[in-house]
Amino acid sequence: PEPVDYVISCVPAVAVPALLEDAANKGVKTVHLFTARLSETGRPEAVDLEQSILKLAQGHGIRLIGPNCMGIYYPLWGMAFHADFPKESGAAGLVCQSGMISREIIQGSAQRGVYFSKCFSYGNAVDLNESDFLEYLAHDRDTRVIMMYIEGVRQGRKFFDTLKRAAALKPVVILKGGMAEAGARATASHTASLAGSYQTWKAMVDQAGAVSADSLEELIDLAASFYFLPPVKGRRVGVIGGTGGSSVLAADKCEQAGLEVIPFPPEFREKLKTQGVSVWDWLSNPVDSSIREDDSFSIGLLLEMMAQDSHFDLLITMTGMGRFGAEPGVAYEDYLKQQYRLDACKDKPFLTVVPDRSPGIKDLNNRTSKVTAEVRTALINLKIPFYPTIARAAFAAAKMIGYYRRLEPDD
Amino acid sequence: PEPVDYVISCVPAVAVPALLEDAANKGVKTVHLFTARLSETGRPEAVDLEQSILKLAQGHGIRLIGPNCMGIYYPLWGMAFHADFPKESGAAGLVCQSGMISREIIQGSAQRGVYFSKCFSYGNAVDLNESDFLEYLAHDRDTRVIMMYIEGVRQGRKFFDTLKRAAALKPVVILKGGMAEAGARATASHTASLAGSYQTWKAMVDQAGAVSADSLEELIDLAASFYFLPPVKGRRVGVIGGTGGSSVLAADKCEQAGLEVIPFPPEFREKLKTQGVSVWDWLSNPVDSSIREDDSFSIGLLLEMMAQDSHFDLLITMTGMGRFGAEPGVAYEDYLKQQYRLDACKDKPFLTVVPDRSPGIKDLNNRTSKVTAEVRTALINLKIPFYPTIARAAFAAAKMIGYYRRLEPDD
Repeated sequence: PEPVDYVISCVPAVAVPALLEDAANKGVKTVHLFTARLSETGRPEAVDLEQSILKLAQGHGIRLIGPNCMGIYYPLWGMAFHADFPKESGAAGLVCQSGMISREIIQGSAQRGVYFSKCFSYGNAVDLNESDFLEYLAHDRDTRVIMMYIEGVRQGRKFFDTLKRAAALKPVVILKGGMAEAGARATASHTASLAGSYQTWKAMVDQAGAVSADSLEELIDLAASFYFLPPVKGRRVGVIGGTGGSSVLAADKCEQAGLEVIPFPPEFREKLKTQGVSVWDWLSNPVDSSIREDDSFSIGLLLEMMAQDSHFDLLITMTGMGRFGAEPGVAYEDYLKQQYRLDACKDKPFLTVVPDRSPGIKDLNNRTSKVTAEVRTALINLKIPFYPTIARAAFAAAKMIGYYRRLEPDD
Repeated sequence: PEPVDYVISCVPAVAVPALLEDAANKGVKTVHLFTARLSETGRPEAVDLEQSILKLAQGHGIRLIGPNCMGIYYPLWGMAFHADFPKESGAAGLVCQSGMISREIIQGSAQRGVYFSKCFSYGNAVDLNESDFLEYLAHDRDTRVIMMYIEGVRQGRKFFDTLKRAAALKPVVILKGGMAEAGARATASHTASLAGSYQTWKAMVDQAGAVSADSLEELIDLAASFYFLPPVKGRRVGVIGGTGGSSVLAADKCEQAGLEVIPFPPEFREKLKTQGVSVWDWLSNPVDSSIREDDSFSIGLLLEMMAQDSHFDLLITMTGMGRFGAEPGVAYEDYLKQQYRLDACKDKPFLTVVPDRSPGIKDLNNRTSKVTAEVRTALINLKIPFYPTIARAAFAAAKMIGYYRRLEPDD
């Protein structure tokens, strides 16, 4: 008896036309077609049915989301398409052509402290498509960062123009599925999309000023970076907290990513000496924190000094695992604040590496896993992004810096 | 009073000469210098001391491991340099210039079911060096796969020749630290090594017939591949178990890695039809396991068919996470055996993807983490390697195939 704005269709494909007639009689504005088995099957009769559904909806002035998709996740109103989605709202928006991928993104992002304003899983995109949802999020005041997973663009020119406008307003990070030959074949049977060439796609995203992700993991790394870090345009990184070998590998990965791991400037080294650091002549960037002759230096001291030195544009710490949890009774947030002297570092972009520690194969409840979870929770509460490896931190930082440099080239 | 073969030196650097005199009097053959703060400090007096230690040892016919290293891990005899190292022996050998990196490798490999015969952490390599340890493992009957982490090679020509001989006998996987400019600077302060150029290094490893790893994670992925999989020279992969979007991304990653994600051959599709699979015309490779009209196909059926079809050289399954643990009372090993029809697949190289699931930031004991650990334990018991992402499985497989193709080019 009450008015209905929005209908979620779970009926079989053949029953959708009748449903649309009913919806039209009720004055429904939008129908989300969870209903699938349409053009993605590649079968001619299903393709025809999808087209007739579109025409019917257009005739009644009804907009369609889908078919073959999960629809809308809008935590503020309690709309979700999985029972285990976070109840919290956040400042990330998502436009995602795949339902299961949107689930992986939403849950994976939450594990990194990234929560969502609105998410759209839009499937075959027979009516509303990637450009419509992107346009919406570009102007949505609750959304600071936009994430996208796209298999095939329905309207190329419109998408490029929309992407360019959106990326000028806020960071847009995009993962494209169907880049390779076999991937392109798979998109056809998944969302009936025609995937284009890898090079063309990357060039288009670059020109629009958006950011390409190469994997789901990188998409989430980039979202976490834009979500938590201030704009940064310099590439000179200070790295600290690894031991010998991991410092060596960290330097390699940072340089591969395009960051500059600068040697300590002479005046910085002088300052180390003045501060009474006995290994002032031996320490370097990355700071190998296993170099110890005495207690004359700490990670906190070095971090504070690098944070306040204009030669460093951003800082990355590697937590290792052995050093946490040693102080009973001290909360991890307080411990990290003190260990990293966070109050003194707060004006410098600050990234941390906390390795993934799945529970061990021999000990299902092992302590390292729990400590990892507690350290990560504390970092999120402190609004500091973490990454499972130095390589992922470095590549995300370098791509983020690239975005801000394109947005506002150095004058 | 008893004879002493092997001494571990933990005394300060200045006390080592006196220790060597004592050792010589006891007829000691080898001294492991855990002792550090020598040439890696870059300080002239420390460099001189290291040289005089070497000369003293040579004068007494004593061989040195180190200085600045953790020495030997030999589980069969209960020798280990960390209390938490596995007690189990295995068929992997390790030559590692960094102590903490060797710890990460040993513990990380054990989490993948890879255990060790003998490991050498050798630091500054003033006497025994990378070539000596490699030569030993090449001829060691307990070692099937050799892993190496090297910052700087002491004797280039000797190393190349040794590597070539070793790689002709068994797979040798090498990670080089100090590839980039800053990384090279860091090796100097870590193990006093001179790192060379990236391109030269890769070309040398290739020519020797060994396998380059680009990160610690890849080093372990490759070791697990060689450890568990039979030699494989074909690149045609069958992929199964993802949903729509993850199948698309899987195809992209496999092709990027250099595998061929072949379409179903017509005769294979015919066979699907004969078997009564209703979606025989819609399914493709990768097999999107969310495509269901009825119960006419299962992952096990498709896996068995691909395993027995000569068009496929290797198989990768993606387990996803939701589908495990549903059957109370059934052990995971039995469940996986039945789910994947492993008895029918046992002659085909078989890789699985089981995502990392660190305990969640909100729920320290969440179930997914435990299920992940149980599934991984079962896979190891079944001697099936797992990888946290499809990309890592695909790149490891492609590099492994490259090794076997170089070893024995197609005739």
